Amino acid sequence: MKTTDVLVIGGSAAGMVAAITGKSSYPDKKFTLVKKQKDVMVPCGIPYIFGTLGDSAKNIMPVDALMAKNEIESIVDEVTAIDAKAKTAHLAGGDTIQFGKLIVATGSVPVKPKWLTGAEKENVFVIPKDKIYLDEMKQKLASCKRVAVIGAGFIGVEFSDELVRDGKEVILVEKEPSILSLAFDVELSDRIQTMLQDRGVNIITGNGVKEIVGGDTVTGVRLENGLTEEVDAVILSMGYQPNTALASKSGINVDESGFIAVDEYMRTHTPDVFAVGDCAQKRDFVTRRRVFTMLASTACAEARIAGMNLFNLHVIKTFSGTIAIYSTAIGDTGYGTAGITEARALEEGIEVVTGFFEGVDRHPGNLPDAHKQLVKLVVARRSGIIIGGEVIGGLSAGELTNVIGLAIENRMSVNALLSSQIGTHPCLTASPAGYPLIKAAEIVAGKIASGKP
Amino acid sequence: MKTTDVLVIGGSAAGMVAAITGKSSYPDKKFTLVKKQKDVMVPCGIPYIFGTLGDSAKNIMPVDALMAKNEIESIVDEVTAIDAKAKTAHLAGGDTIQFGKLIVATGSVPVKPKWLTGAEKENVFVIPKDKIYLDEMKQKLASCKRVAVIGAGFIGVEFSDELVRDGKEVILVEKEPSILSLAFDVELSDRIQTMLQDRGVNIITGNGVKEIVGGDTVTGVRLENGLTEEVDAVILSMGYQPNTALASKSGINVDESGFIAVDEYMRTHTPDVFAVGDCAQKRDFVTRRRVFTMLASTACAEARIAGMNLFNLHVIKTFSGTIAIYSTAIGDTGYGTAGITEARALEEGIEVVTGFFEGVDRHPGNLPDAHKQLVKLVVARRSGIIIGGEVIGGLSAGELTNVIGLAIENRMSVNALLSSQIGTHPCLTASPAGYPLIKAAEIVAGKIASGKP
Repeated sequence: MKTTDVLVIGGSAAGMVAAITGKSSYPDKKFTLVKKQKDVMVPCGIPYIFGTLGDSAKNIMPVDALMAKNEIESIVDEVTAIDAKAKTAHLAGGDTIQFGKLIVATGSVPVKPKWLTGAEKENVFVIPKDKIYLDEMKQKLASCKRVAVIGAGFIGVEFSDELVRDGKEVILVEKEPSILSLAFDVELSDRIQTMLQDRGVNIITGNGVKEIVGGDTVTGVRLENGLTEEVDAVILSMGYQPNTALASKSGINVDESGFIAVDEYMRTHTPDVFAVGDCAQKRDFVTRRRVFTMLASTACAEARIAGMNLFNLHVIKTFSGTIAIYSTAIGDTGYGTAGITEARALEEGIEVVTGFFEGVDRHPGNLPDAHKQLVKLVVARRSGIIIGGEVIGGLSAGELTNVIGLAIENRMSVNALLSSQIGTHPCLTASPAGYPLIKAAEIVAGKIASGKP
Repeated sequence: MKTTDVLVIGGSAAGMVAAITGKSSYPDKKFTLVKKQKDVMVPCGIPYIFGTLGDSAKNIMPVDALMAKNEIESIVDEVTAIDAKAKTAHLAGGDTIQFGKLIVATGSVPVKPKWLTGAEKENVFVIPKDKIYLDEMKQKLASCKRVAVIGAGFIGVEFSDELVRDGKEVILVEKEPSILSLAFDVELSDRIQTMLQDRGVNIITGNGVKEIVGGDTVTGVRLENGLTEEVDAVILSMGYQPNTALASKSGINVDESGFIAVDEYMRTHTPDVFAVGDCAQKRDFVTRRRVFTMLASTACAEARIAGMNLFNLHVIKTFSGTIAIYSTAIGDTGYGTAGITEARALEEGIEVVTGFFEGVDRHPGNLPDAHKQLVKLVVARRSGIIIGGEVIGGLSAGELTNVIGLAIENRMSVNALLSSQIGTHPCLTASPAGYPLIKAAEIVAGKIASGKP
């Protein structure tokens, strides 16, 4: 029997970061990480394998190199059972590992709905974080001309754009009235939809998939409105579910949605067992409700908390809840969202004030590569606290979204943001006098002061 | 005699933003802005007139359009005297304006040191925010081949790079041992220096200018080491001084460094008179010492505070001190700095811990346009509070510097930053597991925990 002080199950972002942070916090302890495959995909890079990158070999996370550098043992195998009392883990390869602390970072798996007739047909794909599956999928897609992508969240949108870039005809199907509806309010998602359409993606909204048709191989998708789109491949980007079968059968507490129950230090209900990343329970930073947000960046923040607090709570900083911070790009347009949208705030009964400002991300706007930049800010009226923001701009939109994320994380009021100093430069940012985030904040402050909606 | 509720003197960033914020906070009041020239330059855009933009007409701030849109009267004239007791301002054109509140935003003027022999010669230039002067300078520079730029702060560096781009031979002369020494620690400024040299700028450090030589027209600069560089033009980028002669002679309190004394609401010692921007006194956010930082972004934050609090302190948010947040670009490399450097901290006797991490601003690094990204973080050891950060990266470095600036503004501890959520995306940012800002924070946290330097 092997022994280790800390066993990490899962070698994607959460497992890797938990192991590295843990080892850096407790250098005298032995850390062992078990992952299923040798090569781990950069999770958010997966859509780009199908266009920009062109090859999964270009999308590999350097897990082994980082494990070696940090003196963490890395094993390619699968944990098939955990005995939480005896503190042992059994591997498919036959070994048993005795551990002191366990970190479960088993991630998530794509949803393939049971009600969807025909989902088992040839050339119907999901998008797992699995190099072998993705390589085979890419090979099969090579001979396909017309592809339906079902579900217009971030991954569906990114896949659609990449497949068009790769020369395919793409139909993106979304049940909700607008694409990216969890992440953006409609005035922003409308613009993103237009951009995608201009790049050649066919978009059908307000109309879900009813059935996948064909013989052994898919020949079309029948939609809720009864019409059938003929396609020779279907990609299901209908979300992910936590991969917690192992935890569940090992007696680690899993909630009714399938996530491993954790506290603010990422501890499960089982002593000495932590869970981080997509498999671990999430609560929204603002609403405190359970949410299903799955983001590598959130996973890494959770992993750092777990790693630092494995043996003692030497860092009195707990995980403060999930601020969903997403960003992505279509061509030279970057867009991002942090916190909650106006639509979501209304659903939760939070009285909000919003500010919307459109400017340019260079100054003067005559500079090369200048790109429109628009910001929507969502602020709780009573407290003036910033709870959400959305951005469409150039390629700096990702970091600008992080500026908003950090304002939310610090529970900044709109007045505090207004008097904050923002660095600006002609070639890098909007102008100091017309910085859209600050201008949107001004609009919000004006509405709060005047009592206007 | 004309009358107005609020008179703003100065039409650059600070004056414009003070007027707009003031009018938006007090819409029933009459606002009047007086500026010296019709066309106002985008201040940070000035170096780019000499290369990338090619024409000052492309670098005009739309002040008149914004004044009209916000129903603020805009007058082209010069205030020659203020009677603070009678609340009147006299204009060079002959008019007198009776005001209720006054905002002085007279900015700064370039330093031309008295000790510098030969500075009055033909083809020796300074860099004022003055379109007429700059147009004439550009015309004269057209026939010059070899130019010395004296002073390697941001403006000197930007000018040098733009002039090389425009085909000139450039010698950048700096008295300090490294360029940009107020903004960057030497391990970063060394890299920026190498980049500039690779782009063709000749750099002489640790060697100030002693004398400008020639007849009526400059023919060379003699340096402190006795050697003379032959040039046919000299640009003095040796800093700016507050433009406060008018305030001083009008009895508005000006400090020993020439700045108008102000409190945290940007009020001068004279009732109903505010001052904002380069002409107003600054205190460092961290050290609370008077500093000479002149930045359009700081000016705009000050202007917003003054504008909101003109008639009553209805926003209990004062200006919290100057966090110098600078960013700029050389080609496709962006770099920025926020707060104080390690070198500055040592001068102040602040015990600091630093973290330095070099990564890539895309993930995987195989994506097009991937650029090295490095972050240095400066943290006070005892409190763990973040007091400074420096970045070299791609064009998102400006907004990443703002992420650091907001962390400083919120007095975040390094542990709070470590557990913060940062949105990441392959095409827009570094990876969630290798985000240089967070990795630098990890290094700092490790050093603090272990007590190592």
